[in-house]
Amino acid sequence: MIHDIEVLKAKTSKISEIDFNNLKFGHVFSDHMLECDFKNGEWEAPKVVPYQPITLDPSAKIFHYGQSVFEGMKAYKDADGKVWLFRPLDNFKRLNISSKRLAIPELPENYFMDGLKALLKVDEDWIPEKEGSSLYIRPFVFASGNGFHASPADEYKFIICTAPSGAYFSGEVKVLIEEKYSRSANGGVGFAKAGGNYAGQFYPTQLAVEKGYQQVIWTDDTSHEYIEEAGAMNIFVRIDDTLVTAPTSDRILDGITRKSIIELAKSENIPVEVRKLSVKEVVEAAQNGSLKEMFGAGTAAVISPISGFGYKDNDYELPKLTDDSYASFLKKRITDIQTNKVEDPFGWRMEVK
Amino acid sequence: MIHDIEVLKAKTSKISEIDFNNLKFGHVFSDHMLECDFKNGEWEAPKVVPYQPITLDPSAKIFHYGQSVFEGMKAYKDADGKVWLFRPLDNFKRLNISSKRLAIPELPENYFMDGLKALLKVDEDWIPEKEGSSLYIRPFVFASGNGFHASPADEYKFIICTAPSGAYFSGEVKVLIEEKYSRSANGGVGFAKAGGNYAGQFYPTQLAVEKGYQQVIWTDDTSHEYIEEAGAMNIFVRIDDTLVTAPTSDRILDGITRKSIIELAKSENIPVEVRKLSVKEVVEAAQNGSLKEMFGAGTAAVISPISGFGYKDNDYELPKLTDDSYASFLKKRITDIQTNKVEDPFGWRMEVK
Ligand SMILES: Cc1ncc(COP(=O)(O)O)c(C=O)c1O
Ligand SMILES: Cc1ncc(COP(=O)(O)O)c(C=O)c1O
Repeated sequence: MIHDIEVLKAKTSKISEIDFNNLKFGHVFSDHMLECDFKNGEWEAPKVVPYQPITLDPSAKIFHYGQSVFEGMKAYKDADGKVWLFRPLDNFKRLNISSKRLAIPELPENYFMDGLKALLKVDEDWIPEKEGSSLYIRPFVFASGNGFHASPADEYKFIICTAPSGAYFSGEVKVLIEEKYSRSANGGVGFAKAGGNYAGQFYPTQLAVEKGYQQVIWTDDTSHEYIEEAGAMNIFVRIDDTLVTAPTSDRILDGITRKSIIELAKSENIPVEVRKLSVKEVVEAAQNGSLKEMFGAGTAAVISPISGFGYKDNDYELPKLTDDSYASFLKKRITDIQTNKVEDPFGWRMEVK
Repeated sequence: MIHDIEVLKAKTSKISEIDFNNLKFGHVFSDHMLECDFKNGEWEAPKVVPYQPITLDPSAKIFHYGQSVFEGMKAYKDADGKVWLFRPLDNFKRLNISSKRLAIPELPENYFMDGLKALLKVDEDWIPEKEGSSLYIRPFVFASGNGFHASPADEYKFIICTAPSGAYFSGEVKVLIEEKYSRSANGGVGFAKAGGNYAGQFYPTQLAVEKGYQQVIWTDDTSHEYIEEAGAMNIFVRIDDTLVTAPTSDRILDGITRKSIIELAKSENIPVEVRKLSVKEVVEAAQNGSLKEMFGAGTAAVISPISGFGYKDNDYELPKLTDDSYASFLKKRITDIQTNKVEDPFGWRMEVK
């Protein structure tokens, strides 16, 4: 299946320099990358090449008009050394959904999937085996064509890089529910994994960090009354025994972890409600003690319990996590499936052979 | 004043290859560029260097998180060969306003101003003399630091490139008033010249182009009832004899052409209203004949008369432009000031010596 992807091997490997027992998130990169160019109206054949710098004209549109989209995935190695991906086709499809909204040409499925598998084969040794570590995979597409006219580029690059990674967050996560700034507009690009969505979050997040929070929870830009999602995670709350998360919309990323958690919870008879979730309801639940848990869900952060939240100059603490918390239970369920420790009744896992 | 900017001259010039009588917009670039790096917490001294490619690691944050801002300015050459800029300090200030919102470090004023002047001195021959042409100037700042963590970069590049340019639009401009898509959110980054704001407009603009329009007029994302601005221009309408434009907000770029037009009109006793402008009002004015003109205002497009607009499957034509139209009059007033043909009572012009 992958026999037709050309591979140019790196002359030397950096792998011996890497301390796989102390991996940060996304700081060291594997020896190779996948590269694929869009030119003359079509995607050229993807190639595996040594990890190397990208050279662009100063007028390349990525520098000026923000035409870029990306994905975030992970590869896991099980006890037998087999390599697994989690719902990779969903990442492929979402990349194209993002591309379309940003006027970037969509990719053929086999370029993405076969290219990714070929890359993982070449850099198989880079996939960590340690519990809690994995190979973070970053597919991205950006405008490499030139010109100062505010219109879509005529050339693009699709690249996949990988980074052996540990946990995304270190320590506890406290969040600030945002009242002033917003992540996305109705009819905007919030549902796309577009570069610009992230840059826009940095400044409000810095303000929150200065106040002692790690992340912002975004609310709708019209009223700031409804909880949407966090910077790189969808948000779940547990009120009494019910798990609640906001519906997706054109402002919210349709997270693969989120939808997996919803399915997993349902299959375990945990009551789940996908519905508008007002800040008022969450604050009241915190005040009357029915707010049991709050957690973020995303590929990078997996499931990240939230220890407390701030809203309008008040701080609310969440109860200490217990072993029977939904967050711990669901995190174990999903990572066990991802790392081939248990059966996968959903067909989510895909072996890379 | 510019004696401390280091200049590395290009070995050869491309200028003889350029047909200055048939310039498109932003397609050919002058021999040099200004380059300035942010490293170890500070901006290093700017340098004029030959126009050259930029080399970045694949994990550079510009490719992933859209951290980029830019400006658009023009340099004009008058009949005596003197070189002029138009309100350049306003561009400098706006660049820093944009940077702040995108968590990009702000630039010192002299790095921007002295760097720009040094660059223009070196490439003075590239500034077109032909009426309607000018040297388009593109200052931009982007995240060159590395890593797959969704947080601000630790390194940035500030670059100024220039492009001898003709008109931005060729032919008439028909616009579509948008009912579904949006450019920016309340509390978002719409007031910043951030790369991501442009990429998000391309797809809706393509849909409009397929229907026969050149540009989209954006409306507020909450109700789509109020006119905001176009892709790279602020919008003015003339109802009877009054010029109306929307107030700026955190969703709208505070255009330098827009505010100059407002001041110019006031000084000419043209009634100007800066207020919310509903689509309903514009449609009714088109229907009852009081809508006399509609035009876009921006550095690239100068003043671009709009010949008609579409809204909810109906098309509305604007009256043919006459010599006493506000658009023609104000365009002549502003370009005469920009190109040193008339007195500049406002102190907007700055000579580059
Ligand atoms: C804005 C945003 N929301 C949610 C998520 C979670 O999505 P997923 O579970 O597919 O990783 C991510 C990260 O991928 C994200 O960037
Ligand atoms: C979104 C947007 N609005 C308006 C303008 C006009 O601003 P200025 O007159 O400062 O060029 C521009 C272009 O610069 C723009 O990009």
